[in-house]
Amino acid sequence: MNRIVRIDMRQLKAVIEEAPQEMMQLGGRALASHVVAAEVPATTHALGRANKLIFAPGLLAGTGAPNSGRLSIGAKSPLTEGIKEANVGGTAATKLARLRVKAIIIEDRSADDRLYVLTIDSGGATLVPADDLVGLGNYDTSATLRRTYGDTVGILGIGPAGEMRLAAASIACTDPEGRPCRHAARGGLGAVMGSKGLKAIVIDDRGARAAEAVDPSGFREICRQYAKEIQELKATKLISQYGTVGGLPYISKMGSLPTRNYRSGSFEKSDAIGGKGVAETNAARGGSFGHICMPGCVVRCSNVMHDKEGNFLTAGFEYESAAMLGANLGIDELDTVMQMEKRCDDLGLDTMETGAALGLAAEAGIFSFGDGRRALSLLEEIGQGSVLGRVLGQGAKITARVFGISRVPVVKGQAIPAHDPRKELGTGIGYATSPQGADHTGVIIYQACDTPEMITMSRAKQVNTCAYDSVGLCQMAEPTPEIMAGLVSRFYGWHWGPEDVAGLGKAVLQKEVTFNRQAGLGPATDRLPDFIKEEPIEPHQGVFTIADQDVDKVLVPE
Amino acid sequence: MNRIVRIDMRQLKAVIEEAPQEMMQLGGRALASHVVAAEVPATTHALGRANKLIFAPGLLAGTGAPNSGRLSIGAKSPLTEGIKEANVGGTAATKLARLRVKAIIIEDRSADDRLYVLTIDSGGATLVPADDLVGLGNYDTSATLRRTYGDTVGILGIGPAGEMRLAAASIACTDPEGRPCRHAARGGLGAVMGSKGLKAIVIDDRGARAAEAVDPSGFREICRQYAKEIQELKATKLISQYGTVGGLPYISKMGSLPTRNYRSGSFEKSDAIGGKGVAETNAARGGSFGHICMPGCVVRCSNVMHDKEGNFLTAGFEYESAAMLGANLGIDELDTVMQMEKRCDDLGLDTMETGAALGLAAEAGIFSFGDGRRALSLLEEIGQGSVLGRVLGQGAKITARVFGISRVPVVKGQAIPAHDPRKELGTGIGYATSPQGADHTGVIIYQACDTPEMITMSRAKQVNTCAYDSVGLCQMAEPTPEIMAGLVSRFYGWHWGPEDVAGLGKAVLQKEVTFNRQAGLGPATDRLPDFIKEEPIEPHQGVFTIADQDVDKVLVPE
Repeated sequence: MNRIVRIDMRQLKAVIEEAPQEMMQLGGRALASHVVAAEVPATTHALGRANKLIFAPGLLAGTGAPNSGRLSIGAKSPLTEGIKEANVGGTAATKLARLRVKAIIIEDRSADDRLYVLTIDSGGATLVPADDLVGLGNYDTSATLRRTYGDTVGILGIGPAGEMRLAAASIACTDPEGRPCRHAARGGLGAVMGSKGLKAIVIDDRGARAAEAVDPSGFREICRQYAKEIQELKATKLISQYGTVGGLPYISKMGSLPTRNYRSGSFEKSDAIGGKGVAETNAARGGSFGHICMPGCVVRCSNVMHDKEGNFLTAGFEYESAAMLGANLGIDELDTVMQMEKRCDDLGLDTMETGAALGLAAEAGIFSFGDGRRALSLLEEIGQGSVLGRVLGQGAKITARVFGISRVPVVKGQAIPAHDPRKELGTGIGYATSPQGADHTGVIIYQACDTPEMITMSRAKQVNTCAYDSVGLCQMAEPTPEIMAGLVSRFYGWHWGPEDVAGLGKAVLQKEVTFNRQAGLGPATDRLPDFIKEEPIEPHQGVFTIADQDVDKVLVPE
Repeated sequence: MNRIVRIDMRQLKAVIEEAPQEMMQLGGRALASHVVAAEVPATTHALGRANKLIFAPGLLAGTGAPNSGRLSIGAKSPLTEGIKEANVGGTAATKLARLRVKAIIIEDRSADDRLYVLTIDSGGATLVPADDLVGLGNYDTSATLRRTYGDTVGILGIGPAGEMRLAAASIACTDPEGRPCRHAARGGLGAVMGSKGLKAIVIDDRGARAAEAVDPSGFREICRQYAKEIQELKATKLISQYGTVGGLPYISKMGSLPTRNYRSGSFEKSDAIGGKGVAETNAARGGSFGHICMPGCVVRCSNVMHDKEGNFLTAGFEYESAAMLGANLGIDELDTVMQMEKRCDDLGLDTMETGAALGLAAEAGIFSFGDGRRALSLLEEIGQGSVLGRVLGQGAKITARVFGISRVPVVKGQAIPAHDPRKELGTGIGYATSPQGADHTGVIIYQACDTPEMITMSRAKQVNTCAYDSVGLCQMAEPTPEIMAGLVSRFYGWHWGPEDVAGLGKAVLQKEVTFNRQAGLGPATDRLPDFIKEEPIEPHQGVFTIADQDVDKVLVPE
């Protein structure tokens, strides 16, 4: 990969250039955050002309390495007002890599307020008006584009939420079957895409050929070894069988499943919306587990969910969605929760941010826990862009603000995902200190251990996450620095050691923190909300007890 | 003044104590910011139990010094998420001083979600339920309380906006005639008062006796000298005749009057909503200028405005209100603008924040510039608490966010008041660097001069403002450190020199900046929005051209 595709939405022009030297060894999150830090004025408005939206495949995308097809999308976030990298599977990264595209950088915004589609293929990059796609959901958008460009293309797109520039808006990425069910969900990057006037990117890699490893046999060997390691992971067997949603009752039992607006950590109906039983019921309806979300996946944690009539309902029905749209809203009907998840995919909404916002709607008296019909109608409000819908679609913090609520489950403006930090203290340390705001990737620590150990673990985990998000490996495959260094070295011939990988991760994390500081987010934004520290969670009565000065050691070691 | 009245809204208890030593030489803003910095956890939610609301008369309140009756109200702001001091005239400060009350500190919030009235008199302090006042506007609230407690009481209160915890909610203070037309408007302190469960404070100073000066004749002499100086100020003559609203056409001519959502700096109908002609028309209807807003005022800039039928319409119709509700919304009917101002007073809304929010509503397509009837109906929406009303009542930043607007006229979340910094560069430096967010008090610099001079002027002005907000003198009376030192020394016998006053001002400013840093607002929040730097303003085509590194010198001198 060596091409940078720069799109000027104002001039409707694409320029494809050789990547400059300083970008050559960067990929994925490292590259996205590099471009944001270098080219976006930190205090600019996230929806303004000066923000940029970067799509960057990880370094190993398209190489055939196990679980290597991750895509990083980066920008200044309208949700956190800091830097954002949202990571997604699907086919886009692999196809971009095959086209030798290291990054797409979307600049400025359309002058005529029209929406456009960007097509990238072996012939180059072109913008075409997308008037026929205005207001369409992701499913219709993908179907329309696949009719025009063929079934083999990869599509990145936004739904009505992104068009309305709602800060809970995601960017959808199609899976290998062309379903827009994989989402770069967090931080409102769909709103940034909408603000640029970009409805979708169509990636057509027909006729393109993947690059080859510098050391083909060495690369094959380490791939084989890594694939074997992944398959031997305890987690792999479980999630390939029942998906991430299979673990929901376990988290409920542990007591960290946000339930009814984070009032409890345990949902009495957790078996109804997650777990082995749900998986078996779905399979009996003709649905299935053990799917891949991207080429080359060994873990196979994705699923295809069917309704009672045995028809396709949704795909990629994950733990975080079931937890935040189900337990956190007190909804115990699986079919309702799946419908909500599908609607979020279609509107282009982060299921976590949306679930948290609807939880606050309950506190505001406009929703009752357990009322699935009302929850679905509130999602329709978002899609229609009513004022209430726009408020909810701006996420948890704005919903709380509009209704005068002081118990706000966010860090840096982003909703706390489905691991309550009053039980998972180590996870809470990561929520507080991640430059991304409260995020479920790269910070989860289930173990309870002493504070210094948790601090060290959280730092190591965040650094390693920055690294694997950059080389483009999936968190589920738990890549070590040794594996990453081996894969990159044998593919590119760069002679990386594990310490180089760790150094890359540290540098990325530091760059992101620095951008946040320059954007106005001071160190004291690294804090969990009051209620997490004060209000004991049912049933085990825990609160988050890690002192601020300990939390601060994650980013500034003593 | 030596009493601190602490109110525990949870326990519904009042404790009156002697002020501790470190508070004895503090008053007004210095005292309010001291208590916020010392007692409010900086990262707590502004509407949460741990925030505190402080009412502190300036040091010279009740002394009879000219223009000395200012009251400071402080808290962590739900609007800026930083520290806030909002300053107001009216009778409360003088009456509190006569009761020897140095500060009222409101803590925690009512456990039963009921609203209460706090009464303070020479017998002590008492909380009584205010069920009969729920939902009432400030005018009805004041009238009801005056019927109960007598016409001589001073009242601090909130309207429906504060009850709904809207971040544009003000705290009203009655003027000498008992009208709730003086507002501690900025920063959403009305929402903090609402979150505490406090509807109003009734101050009854019957039977109380003001303290006497340590050096009575010296104090009288310096008061006489200061009063003479004030009367000789060029501005005094103008604003005592026509009020601050008299200057509106002048600001329009200069080109810094926000017009139609800050698109222009000049309003072609400025004579219709401000100026000498408007004052003369009002006087012909039986209205009047030259009123005092607080006892002992020499400047007399307040007014009583009548409608076409010659009946009382509103009082305290000031420049900032006429500009932001009139010019900024393209509304040129004086009676409509006055009605809007009255409605804001009654609902308990900051007219500046509200005018800015309605300007953004025009960009969102739900208001048309010049449509006074629609503007009034949108104010009713706020009062009724519809979702749209709540969004608007949260101020400019949230209105922009909900409607996906990137051209946002705020600094630190607070709307830019009626002096456009693209013309008034020096004022812009103050907007950017004030720990209060974009504020019209203490930062206005009309002169264009070279950058280092403007930086020095802005710093000096902010420091001096912190000082006179602390001793409790009015900005209109332009108190110098020499005057302040002389007044305080002769009244209290403290031997202050001008350098002590400047030192106090600097210490207050530093304390406020430090709180903001601890609350998460980094130095890079000291920035004006993109469009102020990029979009030339009509008609003179200026933009804000002061470099960030120069702006930063205000708070951190080289």
